[in-house]
Amino acid sequence: MTRLNWGMIGGGDGSQIGPAHRMGAQADGNFSFVAGALDADADRGKSYAQSLGIAPDRAYGNWRDMLEGEREHPDRVDLVTVATPNSTHFEITRAFLEAGFNVLCEKPMTMTVEEGEEIVRLAREAGRICAVNYCYSAYPMVRQMKAMVAAGELGAIRCVVANFSHGHHAAGDDADNPRVRWRYDPAQAGVSGQMADCGIHALHMASFILGDELRSLSADFASTVPGRVLEDDAMVNFRTEKGTVGRLWTSTIALGRQHGLDIQVFGETGGLRWASEQPNQIHYHRLGGRVEIIEKGEAGLHGDAARLSRVPIAHPEGFPLAVANIYVDLAARIRGEVAGALPGAEDGLRSMAAVYAAVDSARRDGAWVDARPPMFR
Amino acid sequence: MTRLNWGMIGGGDGSQIGPAHRMGAQADGNFSFVAGALDADADRGKSYAQSLGIAPDRAYGNWRDMLEGEREHPDRVDLVTVATPNSTHFEITRAFLEAGFNVLCEKPMTMTVEEGEEIVRLAREAGRICAVNYCYSAYPMVRQMKAMVAAGELGAIRCVVANFSHGHHAAGDDADNPRVRWRYDPAQAGVSGQMADCGIHALHMASFILGDELRSLSADFASTVPGRVLEDDAMVNFRTEKGTVGRLWTSTIALGRQHGLDIQVFGETGGLRWASEQPNQIHYHRLGGRVEIIEKGEAGLHGDAARLSRVPIAHPEGFPLAVANIYVDLAARIRGEVAGALPGAEDGLRSMAAVYAAVDSARRDGAWVDARPPMFR
Amino acid sequence: MTRLNWGMIGGGDGSQIGPAHRMGAQADGNFSFVAGALDADADRGKSYAQSLGIAPDRAYGNWRDMLEGEREHPDRVDLVTVATPNSTHFEITRAFLEAGFNVLCEKPMTMTVEEGEEIVRLAREAGRICAVNYCYSAYPMVRQMKAMVAAGELGAIRCVVANFSHGHHAAGDDADNPRVRWRYDPAQAGVSGQMADCGIHALHMASFILGDELRSLSADFASTVPGRVLEDDAMVNFRTEKGTVGRLWTSTIALGRQHGLDIQVFGETGGLRWASEQPNQIHYHRLGGRVEIIEKGEAGLHGDAARLSRVPIAHPEGFPLAVANIYVDLAARIRGEVAGALPGAEDGLRSMAAVYAAVDSARRDGAWVDARPPMFR
Amino acid sequence: MTRLNWGMIGGGDGSQIGPAHRMGAQADGNFSFVAGALDADADRGKSYAQSLGIAPDRAYGNWRDMLEGEREHPDRVDLVTVATPNSTHFEITRAFLEAGFNVLCEKPMTMTVEEGEEIVRLAREAGRICAVNYCYSAYPMVRQMKAMVAAGELGAIRCVVANFSHGHHAAGDDADNPRVRWRYDPAQAGVSGQMADCGIHALHMASFILGDELRSLSADFASTVPGRVLEDDAMVNFRTEKGTVGRLWTSTIALGRQHGLDIQVFGETGGLRWASEQPNQIHYHRLGGRVEIIEKGEAGLHGDAARLSRVPIAHPEGFPLAVANIYVDLAARIRGEVAGALPGAEDGLRSMAAVYAAVDSARRDGAWVDARPPMFR
Repeated sequence: MTRLNWGMIGGGDGSQIGPAHRMGAQADGNFSFVAGALDADADRGKSYAQSLGIAPDRAYGNWRDMLEGEREHPDRVDLVTVATPNSTHFEITRAFLEAGFNVLCEKPMTMTVEEGEEIVRLAREAGRICAVNYCYSAYPMVRQMKAMVAAGELGAIRCVVANFSHGHHAAGDDADNPRVRWRYDPAQAGVSGQMADCGIHALHMASFILGDELRSLSADFASTVPGRVLEDDAMVNFRTEKGTVGRLWTSTIALGRQHGLDIQVFGETGGLRWASEQPNQIHYHRLGGRVEIIEKGEAGLHGDAARLSRVPIAHPEGFPLAVANIYVDLAARIRGEVAGALPGAEDGLRSMAAVYAAVDSARRDGAWVDARPPMFR
Repeated sequence: MTRLNWGMIGGGDGSQIGPAHRMGAQADGNFSFVAGALDADADRGKSYAQSLGIAPDRAYGNWRDMLEGEREHPDRVDLVTVATPNSTHFEITRAFLEAGFNVLCEKPMTMTVEEGEEIVRLAREAGRICAVNYCYSAYPMVRQMKAMVAAGELGAIRCVVANFSHGHHAAGDDADNPRVRWRYDPAQAGVSGQMADCGIHALHMASFILGDELRSLSADFASTVPGRVLEDDAMVNFRTEKGTVGRLWTSTIALGRQHGLDIQVFGETGGLRWASEQPNQIHYHRLGGRVEIIEKGEAGLHGDAARLSRVPIAHPEGFPLAVANIYVDLAARIRGEVAGALPGAEDGLRSMAAVYAAVDSARRDGAWVDARPPMFR
Repeated sequence: MTRLNWGMIGGGDGSQIGPAHRMGAQADGNFSFVAGALDADADRGKSYAQSLGIAPDRAYGNWRDMLEGEREHPDRVDLVTVATPNSTHFEITRAFLEAGFNVLCEKPMTMTVEEGEEIVRLAREAGRICAVNYCYSAYPMVRQMKAMVAAGELGAIRCVVANFSHGHHAAGDDADNPRVRWRYDPAQAGVSGQMADCGIHALHMASFILGDELRSLSADFASTVPGRVLEDDAMVNFRTEKGTVGRLWTSTIALGRQHGLDIQVFGETGGLRWASEQPNQIHYHRLGGRVEIIEKGEAGLHGDAARLSRVPIAHPEGFPLAVANIYVDLAARIRGEVAGALPGAEDGLRSMAAVYAAVDSARRDGAWVDARPPMFR
Repeated sequence: MTRLNWGMIGGGDGSQIGPAHRMGAQADGNFSFVAGALDADADRGKSYAQSLGIAPDRAYGNWRDMLEGEREHPDRVDLVTVATPNSTHFEITRAFLEAGFNVLCEKPMTMTVEEGEEIVRLAREAGRICAVNYCYSAYPMVRQMKAMVAAGELGAIRCVVANFSHGHHAAGDDADNPRVRWRYDPAQAGVSGQMADCGIHALHMASFILGDELRSLSADFASTVPGRVLEDDAMVNFRTEKGTVGRLWTSTIALGRQHGLDIQVFGETGGLRWASEQPNQIHYHRLGGRVEIIEKGEAGLHGDAARLSRVPIAHPEGFPLAVANIYVDLAARIRGEVAGALPGAEDGLRSMAAVYAAVDSARRDGAWVDARPPMFR
């Protein structure tokens, strides 16, 4: 098994997401980190890349230089990760796909539905991987849930309830805190605040686990902190293509919730519950039985969950290895091996369509609207 | 302290709610159980009443006989509990209030908003207590939450999130199970299924804790089990009079939730979480601090919470004593002593208005509607 | 079903345990509270008794008067509860048993093993009930554990691990706090501090659940707060008659444990865990299966657990109703009906023997000693 | 920052611990994996090493070849990890230390106390790092506990209670299961079963967190599964050099405990609790306050805990990154940078002395024995 070549755009010194990607890409020895344009400041980016062991000629000053340099490189990167500011994802992802690279793009993949449709078309035409980093879907126990649903272990699904709430923007110190302020400023964040930031993670998980997509939704947005233009608390009711009822609550002012991402799935014959803060367990209630605790690493897990459990039962695995699992499956896909269900450009597009639909519904007092991207209607 | 005289209508042999009321009324020695019309079958009711120690002449065959018998009795009952089938609550409660009795009515107090308004007016005119058994509001730690909100310990409240979900109707065996079937049959249950059965408990708790009332709401109802006319899963978004954002999810098909009543309150400077299955603790997050666990029975609780903690810290108290706390406060009110905040006829009325509003909204695709009873607009 | 007559000695105004007994005795309508000698101060006791509804002629000034008054009373009490200071339990219990009364004695039943043996002999000769208030054994889910062990659902039992630890004496303010100080003073507390106060509850639970008795033990005692003569932290290793390995840790300086009473039972084919602060659930692990959550009130519980579940599944029941369950079974025994396994004089005796054995072992550096009362060797 | 060179002995194809070390060493880009003797089968080892990207000339057939090859290599490895069968740890560690290499040895470092003393002397003379993989000590929140104790935030420590119990050997299928059988066979496992396998992890954590060492102990061992020569359940009472009371329970037949490693520390003014299955939180009870939940990644953690928190608050980190933290600190030590408290040869020695002391005590019916290695008495 030879290592694949990997490069990153963004994720420079001081970035939170950069180390998670580097650890994720290298944790299993699948990728060598050989190229990068890590910073908006060219000199800082080059210097930081070299401090991470990248050769000087592949420590690029910006993504355009990297595109040129890698395009013709004899050992060109097998995968490019795009971890730049949100508004640049589309342009960079498009450029690298057009040049025939595989891309892992941070979410959101684009800022508009139209851009999203363009990426989907492009990825299909190019025959390249365009993955989006919905990394919660790569927790082993989330994969277990997906497999249980697919295997019919819950019967037909009636209802899914997802939450992604935290209290880290409750202080309301937006004026003094630029890291919070931009989230509620349409000029920087786009049409949506918390729905676009966190809500879509939970919505993606719902679709991912169900193997079913959003059809329509009704949203209620609130800006509970005075001065915020975009929503800091939102409730979305939805229906999937198969008719499953969905509920999503997302908030940034929920003091006491540290990382309140959880999901419940209710079927005819069983119910499941998973929470991000204790990601190695699922509570499973079989109709007529007792609630059982399914443990990561136990015997008899479904294939994808078993494959992605790295250490034995009850040895916890956490967020960084969920990111690493995305890279495990990317490597497998690139090598043509059997891989798990990777979130792709279609997911990035559907998320953007759901955000715009929620904004539209909220503006129209909760009217039910079509949540699908036009190209999938 | 002499004991007060207490009588019950309904709650006969085999009833689930009857024992809870008898234990609640007698747990603290406040009430003597002296009269009853306990069963729709007059003979069975008389016989059962006598087996419980009631004198033959006060073991009545039906509520009308009891009304006649007690009206002129020299030791007439100080309080009547109405625990009959829902559709009879209004008529019985009205009759006893008119005759000058204090009443504790099981929920729902009435089947329509108009009836609710009549009871409110009548209770006011009669100067009698008309309480409704929203017993979850009598848990000591729910009282603590109410007191903390009132004392401003959370700052202005931004959002309240309540759930009351269970999976006990998931089997979908309505055809064979009359105890489930009637809940979804408009002829027996009225306009609403789970919203009227459980949702209003959670809504009442939200209002009770906040000291604030519903103003408007938008609802999404689903009947996830084929054949059900009324909803078995509902989401209600609401706004209170003071503008607080509210979310309520209630379900009967949530396999894995055994008694999933919980409530979260988020204010400017603090957040609280309480769950019915572990009712002796609150999780409290003060802005800038850590999540703290408030324990029933700890030193420094607010007055109402301290008063209703019967056994020392970490000795759990449960549902039957929450019911008993309702009787503690009823006895205090009857005696003219200091009592806690009892849910009254206004609460019964507001709940009914909320149910009708939710039904109306759900029928109109989630349109926002006024949730207040006409007399309080 | 006529009510039985009940009287109490001790438990006067301000007592913590008095209200628990009154609520316990009266919660189910089995007993009428008709006689009492409630206070060491005769006048206070009489006055308080009357305020609780006891007739003046049965509101006694002391236990000897009560013994005389009740002995010949035509409606003499069917049961006497002894809730006086520990050092008086033996004398009072003996006197009432000799006079032919049934007795429920607070723990410890006696201060010495010899006294304990005398009570056991006396109760046998008199043919009267002498129960000891090991009330934790009356939680429905503790009864479920006992029944599961008896039914062989865990296979042969290998090990039991019990803890009863709290941090309520951690302040070390003994000098200023008489309620704490006496616990560590041999003149008042006897030979043991925390072992006698709380440890024996956990030991009793172990024996009760296993249906097996202590044979030998080795103890390590510590007085971690300077100035304490008696132990505030103890570890006891033991073996039962059937050879099961036992571990017991008990402490009063365990800051963070509020009421840390829990018990784990491990057999050949299954393990159980129960904790006092969440008493309505058991975690059950069947060999080769997953951990399952058994809920009070679920279908299919063993008889004793089902009988003592008063409200439906997931409606919590707490400590006061565990005490009430002791009275339920006492009433059944008095009436000659089928009753559950009541802790009796033998349990009181065995506990005292275990305490003395632990003290002896701890003084001899953990030497293994016989833990049985002489009369049961 | 150039990468350090790293090699591993053992941890070949199919090994459980090998991947954890490779991920740990490479997760943060500190080490390049350049050499290995990975398997007892020379050909398999060489082939597997090359499949992991190691150059053919550094894919060795056995550890002696590796020692020779690396000794004079111009880019010789900066660190060797020894992950071979237990009985070989001593010989290999000694040889590499003598040749001037830094070593990370899996536990147990040696099979006897004498060997342990030899390694300690050798590491001191050689001036090289000899670390032992007590990886639980590298969880950020364990470091936080250590720092809180050192800072006096709990006052003087009174008591520490550690458990490390699981039920994975409860099946008792030793005859058919070689992976279980050897643990209880003195010929393969040495003098102790579960105490040496898991108990010493918990004991090490206790010493590590307290900054205090064992002085004496008393042990009770049991072989609850028929046929086992070595213990599968053990209780150890101990005292530290500073006089703190210690309790340790460890078991392999505890059905329901999946990975029951937890530790509680009780001081004069505060108590802490941490559990391995939810490693990102500590419960902290300050005398007179409420229980607070300390979260990995929160603001204001002590230095070592903050430094080792890789992803934001409430994003869980698990076991593999605890191992990685050992490598983070090894790299820092090798580079002469500021590092955290690494478990070293002295810890390996003290653990072995504690195991032998426990065996001795258990054989002598729990007699208290000196738990220190002779060289530290």
